[in-house]
Amino acid sequence: MASSAAAIVFSDSPFRSSPLIHTHHVSRYAPRSVSVSVVSPSRRASRRGLAVKSALIDPDGGKLMNLVVEESRRRVMKREAETVPIRIKLNRVDLEWVHVLSEGWASPLKGFMRQSEFLQTLHFNSFRLEDGSVVNMSVPIVLAIDDDQKFRIGDSNRVTLVDSVGNPIAILTDIEIYKHPKEERIARTWGTTARGLPYAEEAITKAGNWLIGGDLQVLEPIKYNDGLDRFRLSPSQLREEFIRRGADAVFAFQLRNPVHNGHALLMTDTRRRLLEMGYKNPVLLLNPLGGFTKADDVPLSWRMRQHEKVLEDGVLDPETTVVSIFPSPMLYAGPTEVQWHAKARINAGANFYIVGRDPAGMGHPTENRDLYDADHGKKVLSMAPGLERLNILPFKVAAYDKTQGKMAFFDPSRSQDFLFISGTKMRGLAKKKENPPDGFMCPSGWKVLVDYYDSLSAESGNGRVSEAVASA
Amino acid sequence: MASSAAAIVFSDSPFRSSPLIHTHHVSRYAPRSVSVSVVSPSRRASRRGLAVKSALIDPDGGKLMNLVVEESRRRVMKREAETVPIRIKLNRVDLEWVHVLSEGWASPLKGFMRQSEFLQTLHFNSFRLEDGSVVNMSVPIVLAIDDDQKFRIGDSNRVTLVDSVGNPIAILTDIEIYKHPKEERIARTWGTTARGLPYAEEAITKAGNWLIGGDLQVLEPIKYNDGLDRFRLSPSQLREEFIRRGADAVFAFQLRNPVHNGHALLMTDTRRRLLEMGYKNPVLLLNPLGGFTKADDVPLSWRMRQHEKVLEDGVLDPETTVVSIFPSPMLYAGPTEVQWHAKARINAGANFYIVGRDPAGMGHPTENRDLYDADHGKKVLSMAPGLERLNILPFKVAAYDKTQGKMAFFDPSRSQDFLFISGTKMRGLAKKKENPPDGFMCPSGWKVLVDYYDSLSAESGNGRVSEAVASA
Repeated sequence: MASSAAAIVFSDSPFRSSPLIHTHHVSRYAPRSVSVSVVSPSRRASRRGLAVKSALIDPDGGKLMNLVVEESRRRVMKREAETVPIRIKLNRVDLEWVHVLSEGWASPLKGFMRQSEFLQTLHFNSFRLEDGSVVNMSVPIVLAIDDDQKFRIGDSNRVTLVDSVGNPIAILTDIEIYKHPKEERIARTWGTTARGLPYAEEAITKAGNWLIGGDLQVLEPIKYNDGLDRFRLSPSQLREEFIRRGADAVFAFQLRNPVHNGHALLMTDTRRRLLEMGYKNPVLLLNPLGGFTKADDVPLSWRMRQHEKVLEDGVLDPETTVVSIFPSPMLYAGPTEVQWHAKARINAGANFYIVGRDPAGMGHPTENRDLYDADHGKKVLSMAPGLERLNILPFKVAAYDKTQGKMAFFDPSRSQDFLFISGTKMRGLAKKKENPPDGFMCPSGWKVLVDYYDSLSAESGNGRVSEAVASA
Repeated sequence: MASSAAAIVFSDSPFRSSPLIHTHHVSRYAPRSVSVSVVSPSRRASRRGLAVKSALIDPDGGKLMNLVVEESRRRVMKREAETVPIRIKLNRVDLEWVHVLSEGWASPLKGFMRQSEFLQTLHFNSFRLEDGSVVNMSVPIVLAIDDDQKFRIGDSNRVTLVDSVGNPIAILTDIEIYKHPKEERIARTWGTTARGLPYAEEAITKAGNWLIGGDLQVLEPIKYNDGLDRFRLSPSQLREEFIRRGADAVFAFQLRNPVHNGHALLMTDTRRRLLEMGYKNPVLLLNPLGGFTKADDVPLSWRMRQHEKVLEDGVLDPETTVVSIFPSPMLYAGPTEVQWHAKARINAGANFYIVGRDPAGMGHPTENRDLYDADHGKKVLSMAPGLERLNILPFKVAAYDKTQGKMAFFDPSRSQDFLFISGTKMRGLAKKKENPPDGFMCPSGWKVLVDYYDSLSAESGNGRVSEAVASA
């Protein structure tokens, strides 16, 4: 299909092998500018939350949180941040959570969890608001500090959070410090304490013995300057875009892998079903996860390039698809995490959520089996407190139909006609520069994968560790 | 105090060292006969649940479950149980859960959990009923079977459950078999997977790879014939007793340890507070746990004898105290289990629940620390879904006040005056036949503990394993 149909075009990617591309047709899927503040003047009445007036699903708690300081107050707040004596350095995952919180993906959370929120998350995957209503919250969004930091904070009631080079990012106020029960946190979030859980190794095991909760005031919108910031639409921006398009249903698809034609079939079929249900203009939120992922997942920049090709190729319709990056880190916590993935998309305006086999799952880190039962994710999601308003759309399983030469919904009555191509098999083929069966993925998308693995082996051949992998 | 004030008197204890005692004053705390069916004819309208009409708190789900087959149908059902081809043998803990379920402590559960209930318990500590309301349910009540049993069951839709010598106990109908995710179950229930968790070792690790859920029809009331059955009042019987006494508030105290004067102070003080709140006749449900406990806990028969002495001694007032055994096994699952302990007592008619430091806690099995933060239990309990109707009464900490020579509420302003006597210290003293400080426990109650440890060392001196310990 002609590239004029493409909805995603990249520019200024920091990765060596990325082509320099310019933007066109960007209005199909994203506001032209996302570098300015999300909050339009008319919506600034409430500093902490903005009431969204539209036919879209209400955010959790009724108000979409916006924790970024208004532009008019930024100068003052930045000066104030410099005067706070205690500074806590954020690591990569911490910063991703600041991003998530700042834009209201975790509404009604106003900052890093205090103990009552943390305990309710661990035990109930949800918490009760003052008005008695219940919102879902299944993964702890917490900030760890060590003994020395706790000692230095003493009786202070606020701290400044800074990035890796010391730039102030946010002020955390009305702080509460409580013990970091690492083993219990891991056991209750993942249902295992086996070593080798990627997120636990990255962000918990080596982290401090204390957690610090409080309200966040983020000094300006979080940017990564990696050429992809334009694709990081906040829930508020996504809602504006859905309203602009006149969407009467929004269905979200979470992904952290390259899109193949099975996924595309599913998304297309979902739209068909929604039209049959009477919706006039269902819009797809294709929302690849942009935060921390494990080392053998395909890095975000390559995935975004692959998604671009899929849209260029017409496999998905840019007219009814919004592609945007979900800034959360990935926990690989299966049935616990899929609730977070769904809940965050409610805040972004989605009232339908597509869920498949083994969502947010992975292999058991020390045993030769999947960590989660493949059916638990969708079952848990369908029963989760606080998600009653969300329509859960379970996957049909798609597989490669050898008789048709394309991806199709699996028909158990002629199972011999179908070929299941796992992620492992897909990666194996791409690494060996072999082609998958025709119709599995559009050739231009497949080429991106081959190029990615090629770039890895070229780099490791040079005796250097791939930057993309090291940072993934 | 005169023994005429005693409310608990034992008879026919199977333990060798138990004295033979006869019953008197039993009506103060228990119906005279508990061996007949709980269900009075007028309440038999609904086979599955009986609507309780009183001023007491409603059972969870509105109806107290009674899964024991009516007397008129027992003969038929027993014949039917004999004809069911598949028989599953219950172990001790399984039987305790059948007991718990049969009497409605776990209302509205009608039998061993099916997968949807199991998953909601693990992830949300609660489940949603068909009418949309939420009830608390924090510990899995499940029955494990092995591969061979699953194979033999095949497509059958019911099985007969039998005791250790093959006597039919119950029929499980409309069965559902699903995988037993042992590691995940342990991690999400205990917040650790460390080896040495007593319940996990007893009932999970070696159990089968499958769980079987379904509706229970229990052939007759569960009895242990250990001389203590008279003290095992069902929730229905307890409700009748509270109504008979004209209780306008019922406050429950869960325990699995000997009662010392600090506990007594607390219970007495709670009653005083309730009277101050305007209640005219608050009644205490002193509800020692009667099921599986870990090997170093004092066995039930000895604890009951100790409780008897405490009441005889007038430390607690028999007029306003109902002592009865709670048939559940003990999980030592801290903040998760305390919810179960509280929820079960709602079903028994309690609308106030006393909770202390580290409820249902224990030492970490492999690390030199407590398994749970001592404050988490009461915090989690106070926020737990489905327990909003229950009034949580957090403990004040009682300790031995050296200046008064008695147990008193700890006063931090003169902490040097107080002595904390831990369970470990108490056991150590009793083992060495030493006395605790005067006023820690009534002397006759203390003597029971000394006698217990004496009986253990006498038996181990004979080269025999103590029956009491082996079965604890």
